[in-house]
Amino acid sequence: MFKATLKSDILKNIVNAISPVSDEVKFSITPEGMTMRAVDPTHIEMIGLDINKAAFDSFEADETEIGLELDKVRDVLKLASSGDTITIEQDSERGKLIFKLGNITRRMNLLDTSSINAPKVPNLDLSATIVASSQEILKGIKASSDISDHISLSADGETFEIASSGDTDSMNLVLDKSNLVSINAPQAVRSAFTIDYFFNIIKAVPSDTNVTIGLDTDKPVKISYGLAEGNGVVRYLLAPRIED
Amino acid sequence: MFKATLKSDILKNIVNAISPVSDEVKFSITPEGMTMRAVDPTHIEMIGLDINKAAFDSFEADETEIGLELDKVRDVLKLASSGDTITIEQDSERGKLIFKLGNITRRMNLLDTSSINAPKVPNLDLSATIVASSQEILKGIKASSDISDHISLSADGETFEIASSGDTDSMNLVLDKSNLVSINAPQAVRSAFTIDYFFNIIKAVPSDTNVTIGLDTDKPVKISYGLAEGNGVVRYLLAPRIED
Amino acid sequence: MFKATLKSDILKNIVNAISPVSDEVKFSITPEGMTMRAVDPTHIEMIGLDINKAAFDSFEADETEIGLELDKVRDVLKLASSGDTITIEQDSERGKLIFKLGNITRRMNLLDTSSINAPKVPNLDLSATIVASSQEILKGIKASSDISDHISLSADGETFEIASSGDTDSMNLVLDKSNLVSINAPQAVRSAFTIDYFFNIIKAVPSDTNVTIGLDTDKPVKISYGLAEGNGVVRYLLAPRIED
Repeated sequence: MFKATLKSDILKNIVNAISPVSDEVKFSITPEGMTMRAVDPTHIEMIGLDINKAAFDSFEADETEIGLELDKVRDVLKLASSGDTITIEQDSERGKLIFKLGNITRRMNLLDTSSINAPKVPNLDLSATIVASSQEILKGIKASSDISDHISLSADGETFEIASSGDTDSMNLVLDKSNLVSINAPQAVRSAFTIDYFFNIIKAVPSDTNVTIGLDTDKPVKISYGLAEGNGVVRYLLAPRIED
Repeated sequence: MFKATLKSDILKNIVNAISPVSDEVKFSITPEGMTMRAVDPTHIEMIGLDINKAAFDSFEADETEIGLELDKVRDVLKLASSGDTITIEQDSERGKLIFKLGNITRRMNLLDTSSINAPKVPNLDLSATIVASSQEILKGIKASSDISDHISLSADGETFEIASSGDTDSMNLVLDKSNLVSINAPQAVRSAFTIDYFFNIIKAVPSDTNVTIGLDTDKPVKISYGLAEGNGVVRYLLAPRIED
Repeated sequence: MFKATLKSDILKNIVNAISPVSDEVKFSITPEGMTMRAVDPTHIEMIGLDINKAAFDSFEADETEIGLELDKVRDVLKLASSGDTITIEQDSERGKLIFKLGNITRRMNLLDTSSINAPKVPNLDLSATIVASSQEILKGIKASSDISDHISLSADGETFEIASSGDTDSMNLVLDKSNLVSINAPQAVRSAFTIDYFFNIIKAVPSDTNVTIGLDTDKPVKISYGLAEGNGVVRYLLAPRIED
């Protein structure tokens, strides 16, 4: 059994957060909330999402699993205006999920969850931690994408740098304590990533949200931020691109 | 002889109303106003348009016929801002229609009206009549188009329903007296239609305009609304899609 | 040596002005400012651009030449907001140009200027001179482009006309002293041009800027306007399209 009501904006943030990684997803539901884990088909990025029931206007559930195509949820969200409320109810007998939005009722087939992988997201220990607004990071991504298809992130003491270089041209964005929320980089670290993966993760961050970046040399980057006023959290691991 | 001046917004509403059905159209003009009738090439939808001379800022005409490509009128409208006034004058000698918009003069060839069909639009007697805002109907169309390429309209007593179902998913929008302007459905009726035709008709309705829908089981739907503050009216008949 | 700071909006106007003619351009720089000349590959249009150092917030330079791909400068401008300031510095040793925008640094390769032609722009003597807002001229261009791929400009006494005619349809926009800033056309003149070239030049004019048009029968048209509050000027010559 699962029945919950939430703001369409929160559902939109959840769908946007998962979209870069996977379209067919499995939510594990308990009386206390829901979680999901996924890895993208190329095994380059992983996501872990945890939403407490406090993020919902109402939430009633036994332990259950729900398999969903996000594309269909996005269809429902396109019908919603900001501030609208959506009710989601599991119809276990018919294997359907029922979305109610105002006077619209949308029934969609549930996916067989046994075929959807939910990997464990490893908890890496990375030496540098940077907290920045998603807008500053997006600026660096935009500037980089004119130059190359990969981007390097580096941190050293009190500066965080986003850089990119091509055959003839190069670019860097330097953020220091005046532009960052916080930085802790006891030693110099640097790791490079494919821009598209990094961009798709960062552009899904709700505006005015701070992003925490865990970084270490030639290791995956850990990206995380809060959802639903702190009642949810999304974490990504993105594999590095080892340069020659 | 035909010479008239009207607001560009009214001309735009007229062109938008006809566009879903036909591009080459014949207007029949009298001293009292103008009418046009058309059927689309697949004979699935018909339109009847009647505009009284009171819809115009000025209107002088003998009985005449004018054949036009709407695409060219749309070109003129793209040059107009909301609130602009357009003067249209027939140059019978040269077989041209002259549009004047500010300091722009646009001359366009008239079409040979003898080759343009103007069918009679039959006056069907349909048992249910629903009056609703075009916005509510559009919401149902948008929700349906994610599911299927056809849509069913049904009415029963005090509720009007727009629904759609596909192989695995389904959707319905239920409007009752609280969402409708009015409804009169003495018996349950239901008819289905191709979404695209229905959508193109409804999306041409000027915003904040109420639409009257005449409905009966497996019969064409009649859609009508007023133009130019009640000085014009547009009526459509859209053939049903008979389901198995 | 070359190092200068300017408003991103002025740099954008400069790039937009040159774009219709050429992408790879050579700027000749002196202690007093910069100039550039270019002709498009089909030799149909020429541009001459002169910017005084007063257009810059700061400007330090020896005599030098800089070869640039405008596409890359456009990349930098996409990162700027209106009101931002951009610093440009030549790194002669490495053959690079360095753009600084906030905390972003972008290094780009300079082009070999010896391979970039900078033609002399002839100073034609044309009998009619019209000064008009770019908005009025754009209106005439938009109306013409529905009709044909060429446009005729004519002036006679106190009226300036933009016209276009196709096989069946025609259009004209008449501007007189009430719509023009000024006109001086002692004799009737008329010349025709390919719309696309004329359109691309006029649409790059900053809004609220007056354009001066020099016109004579079957001669090139001269188009010029001021940049950076009169501290710069851009001049075009566009070859006529001789009609049968």
